[in-house]
Amino acid sequence: MQRFALIGAGFIGSLHARNLFRHSNVSLDFIADIDVEKAQALAAEHGALAISIDEVFTTEIDAVLIASSTPTHADYVERAAHAGKAIYCEKPIDLDTRRAEQAVTAVREAGVPLMIGFNRRFDESHAALKEVAMTGELGKIELVQMTCRSQETPPMAYIKASGGQMRDQAIHFFDLLCWLTDDVPVEVHVTGAALSDPSIGEAGDVDTSIATLRMASGALVQIDCTRRTGYGYDERVELFGAEGMAESQRQPHRHLSIYKGSEQISDGLHADWLKRIEPTFYAALDTFVRGLDGEQVDYPNAGAALRAQRIADAATKSLQTRMPVTLTWD
Amino acid sequence: MQRFALIGAGFIGSLHARNLFRHSNVSLDFIADIDVEKAQALAAEHGALAISIDEVFTTEIDAVLIASSTPTHADYVERAAHAGKAIYCEKPIDLDTRRAEQAVTAVREAGVPLMIGFNRRFDESHAALKEVAMTGELGKIELVQMTCRSQETPPMAYIKASGGQMRDQAIHFFDLLCWLTDDVPVEVHVTGAALSDPSIGEAGDVDTSIATLRMASGALVQIDCTRRTGYGYDERVELFGAEGMAESQRQPHRHLSIYKGSEQISDGLHADWLKRIEPTFYAALDTFVRGLDGEQVDYPNAGAALRAQRIADAATKSLQTRMPVTLTWD
Amino acid sequence: MQRFALIGAGFIGSLHARNLFRHSNVSLDFIADIDVEKAQALAAEHGALAISIDEVFTTEIDAVLIASSTPTHADYVERAAHAGKAIYCEKPIDLDTRRAEQAVTAVREAGVPLMIGFNRRFDESHAALKEVAMTGELGKIELVQMTCRSQETPPMAYIKASGGQMRDQAIHFFDLLCWLTDDVPVEVHVTGAALSDPSIGEAGDVDTSIATLRMASGALVQIDCTRRTGYGYDERVELFGAEGMAESQRQPHRHLSIYKGSEQISDGLHADWLKRIEPTFYAALDTFVRGLDGEQVDYPNAGAALRAQRIADAATKSLQTRMPVTLTWD
Amino acid sequence: MQRFALIGAGFIGSLHARNLFRHSNVSLDFIADIDVEKAQALAAEHGALAISIDEVFTTEIDAVLIASSTPTHADYVERAAHAGKAIYCEKPIDLDTRRAEQAVTAVREAGVPLMIGFNRRFDESHAALKEVAMTGELGKIELVQMTCRSQETPPMAYIKASGGQMRDQAIHFFDLLCWLTDDVPVEVHVTGAALSDPSIGEAGDVDTSIATLRMASGALVQIDCTRRTGYGYDERVELFGAEGMAESQRQPHRHLSIYKGSEQISDGLHADWLKRIEPTFYAALDTFVRGLDGEQVDYPNAGAALRAQRIADAATKSLQTRMPVTLTWD
Repeated sequence: MQRFALIGAGFIGSLHARNLFRHSNVSLDFIADIDVEKAQALAAEHGALAISIDEVFTTEIDAVLIASSTPTHADYVERAAHAGKAIYCEKPIDLDTRRAEQAVTAVREAGVPLMIGFNRRFDESHAALKEVAMTGELGKIELVQMTCRSQETPPMAYIKASGGQMRDQAIHFFDLLCWLTDDVPVEVHVTGAALSDPSIGEAGDVDTSIATLRMASGALVQIDCTRRTGYGYDERVELFGAEGMAESQRQPHRHLSIYKGSEQISDGLHADWLKRIEPTFYAALDTFVRGLDGEQVDYPNAGAALRAQRIADAATKSLQTRMPVTLTWD
Repeated sequence: MQRFALIGAGFIGSLHARNLFRHSNVSLDFIADIDVEKAQALAAEHGALAISIDEVFTTEIDAVLIASSTPTHADYVERAAHAGKAIYCEKPIDLDTRRAEQAVTAVREAGVPLMIGFNRRFDESHAALKEVAMTGELGKIELVQMTCRSQETPPMAYIKASGGQMRDQAIHFFDLLCWLTDDVPVEVHVTGAALSDPSIGEAGDVDTSIATLRMASGALVQIDCTRRTGYGYDERVELFGAEGMAESQRQPHRHLSIYKGSEQISDGLHADWLKRIEPTFYAALDTFVRGLDGEQVDYPNAGAALRAQRIADAATKSLQTRMPVTLTWD
Repeated sequence: MQRFALIGAGFIGSLHARNLFRHSNVSLDFIADIDVEKAQALAAEHGALAISIDEVFTTEIDAVLIASSTPTHADYVERAAHAGKAIYCEKPIDLDTRRAEQAVTAVREAGVPLMIGFNRRFDESHAALKEVAMTGELGKIELVQMTCRSQETPPMAYIKASGGQMRDQAIHFFDLLCWLTDDVPVEVHVTGAALSDPSIGEAGDVDTSIATLRMASGALVQIDCTRRTGYGYDERVELFGAEGMAESQRQPHRHLSIYKGSEQISDGLHADWLKRIEPTFYAALDTFVRGLDGEQVDYPNAGAALRAQRIADAATKSLQTRMPVTLTWD
Repeated sequence: MQRFALIGAGFIGSLHARNLFRHSNVSLDFIADIDVEKAQALAAEHGALAISIDEVFTTEIDAVLIASSTPTHADYVERAAHAGKAIYCEKPIDLDTRRAEQAVTAVREAGVPLMIGFNRRFDESHAALKEVAMTGELGKIELVQMTCRSQETPPMAYIKASGGQMRDQAIHFFDLLCWLTDDVPVEVHVTGAALSDPSIGEAGDVDTSIATLRMASGALVQIDCTRRTGYGYDERVELFGAEGMAESQRQPHRHLSIYKGSEQISDGLHADWLKRIEPTFYAALDTFVRGLDGEQVDYPNAGAALRAQRIADAATKSLQTRMPVTLTWD
């Protein structure tokens, strides 16, 4: 039984609380939030104890799940590392890559496990795609196509604090890309525009973008990101290899079709990202817990977090300069 | 080059004329119809000569394609047989099975080739299903499901002359069934009703029916037939075997999808049976011609015609008596 | 908060225990089983107390969930009814319809809620089909097609105690049919055979069957049931109406396709019925609990249980006599 | 009846000959080829007369269909224009855009109709996509995704004479893009590599490329092109607008699925581009002929040819310089 403290009792914190509560090998002992009442309400719901954030790093627990606001992540990661706790941290560690690197250094020195919430890896269909890629049956990967389209533009306050579309939205797919292909990009070029909402452009960001990457292996990659579709949450990944192609497809939310006149009207995509992605939160947590229980598991670690962040930085620079940007890896 | 005379210059005759004209190994020399003007117009369109029906059986040709009205088929088949011509005849040979048997006897005595227009066998997807069935990879067939739904009720005059839903519509699927499974039914039970149009019921026919058959091999079969959908022409065949299932699916008429709101709106089925089935007419003709040219081909012959007709007779009897009807084959 | 006692700590009981534990408005207080150790183990897992079956009917609880073996259901239903508890009972109440009717009488006299575990109604796609049917946009229903194919034949011991394919497997679809169409059958004809395993035939049962039903409204229905596919769990429902058709489709278990050579290889169906149906158990329970909490809900009640059972009895009689059987309803 | 002369009796010429022969409003009178025997053989097959290329421009015909080798196109276009014939010319008019512009000037001065063989516009699904785009129901177009993947690398001789992947393969999609969106690109960036065959790289070309375009309207576009898949011909277009998305999808060549074990094995894509695209040749020709017959039709004209060519030139320059290239239009 792994004893957890959860930091953050907001939307994502509550979601994690439900999964921690459900998990038979987890004991959700403590919940902390700078808003004490929020922590108390969520704790009451799941039979946990509300404590202060400082107490999290001194109590008898095995792991900390960090789901607070982004600017607090690096600090909490460092403190949890110093306290010798295993860490599950929502992405990103910090919008500033150097600050994130500092936190990762603390984690590495402490030798504690760190998992980053790149939960798309735990989507069943994407995971099946990874399995296919690893069998080698597609041959050498030559082309990757990723579609990443949110249903609804987040509020401007969120946009402004997000670090931009590359660091906030595309970063999940930068991680997915490296993981699926076991490769890293050496060049990235991004074209973008604020098409759905001019105020996004005024804030210096884009809502529609196409990233083109060249991988170390020579493979080419395209990723299109948009902030709001008129038709639900749309995510899709294609791996094209020398001997075949595999696709983790758009997913209908139910399996109903109506035939009328000259049309077949089917259920469309999931209404929002949470409906599509929700099962991955539990699957990600479960992997982390199995790792704590001693099982050999594969999850997005500190290295993956920094890697995705460096790609997002380069992508952001390309967006700003309108030029391809080179990436080097040692 | 096979020289053809075509009898019948109506809707189906015109369709056959176009295919005969297009075929590079066919010379469409003559067209006959009891309506001489119709024959002349169609002949002019394709550089053929209009002749009388009597002349068809005395001219220098290799084959006769019979696409006239049903009551004339048996007579023309016999005359073509006596004249030693190869025969392609639209189904049925005659609504009365004994009359059809007489005509077949004449064909067999004359030793001429006879092909019946059960053209669904030549649908690419159904033909692929047959190939799968023949590999044995599905294991022993245990269950067959056939869906056969027309887009629009034919005129009452047609219904009244058709011999009923079993002899007119279901008969195509009785043939397809025997061909796909290489088997014959030993029992048939049909439940039906006139649901779309009461005047069909007053005429003693049904427009909606479910036939259940038990095959000699023990396999069970269900066939649903309807006369008018609200959504185009709907045809579908499933073969369920001990080791797998194969499906010749509903077919969209194009491959377009629109995603809007919570829906995916795709192109529906073909607007009518002709749009779905049209390519099979050419494929059927081509098979017949390749047979005339000496190639070893498989097509619905006299035996298949009589077999399907006996099943349709039994199905009609079951509809009338509301009881299962037994079929015996020597 | 509804306080529950669970009777039955076997496979289905354990599944219900997990859902009762997860539900935020449920307190799973007690678990009973004739195998006391099983009850204790399951109770320990969920922080409940193991008690004897007799104690279930005297403790301070709101509801009893009956998931014990079929022959005990009717007795427990009656005792729970006399004790004034709300009842959620796995199907069937009893294999013998008269015994089931007695139990239902007790429930009605006690005035307690009774829900039967016809959980397919709670499948998201079937539920969406029901919504479509209720809008009337399909027009008057004329034809229903249901496919119900299990992945693997249950053990012979199960088969022998099951009451036969109609009472064990088809009964779910008899309930679904009445619910979806808001109608009842007036005639049923079933053709069946033991094709996958002769010992099923020796036990007097079938493993492959086609049921044809005529509804009071005139609509025709076909249901095919098989016990083992070579390809996972296969369930499908089509409602064909005067103005359109709606289909709750076969469901792939993930959304992955591989394109290689001339093939597209996609994820197939769910490996077994539980993988396909599991979410419906929670959804069904949740509906029951919301009803207890005072919400207006629709679920399969005593009347639905008896209705499905009478259809299954008639279907079984048709199988045995090979003749259509008439059903009358007051 | 439009009287045609066909120049070119090779692979594409033969295909055009069959369509010209089939068309009821076309009289295929003459066929010319620099290889006289080829012209004679093809002419014999369709009842036409073989003539010299010079004679084409002096005979009594209405239209010339130019399907000879690319370097001859511009010359023949000019000669046909001077002779006052309507012209259907396979793409491109000339690999050199200035030479193509000269030929177009001759056509414009002569006032004769010129259609370019951008036949993908005539694909039924793409044409349906255009219709959807024109209704405005997708809202303002913001993102376009095009997939253009051939099944098999053409011979090196073809590659070397083709003008490169942009001018040979992508150009069809540059035309499709402008037509579908009624817009032009103002910036293009292409990343490419020779991944399937190093000798393509040695010849200075690529076989895998990703083009990113920014349209005058602000919309962003991505086009991926590959020379050989392991899985047939793969073509797909998505239009993403402010109010919805429409997709002209990958097309299976038949509609057969096999369910076995945990897989659904379906028919894959068309084996090669011709199988997928063949119907568009007839549809394109028919549109041209209807235009000659006085009907108001829309087809790829001289302006479209030059527009696509300028985009292909810019795309080629971007490939070579690895930098975005700007396009200006007056």
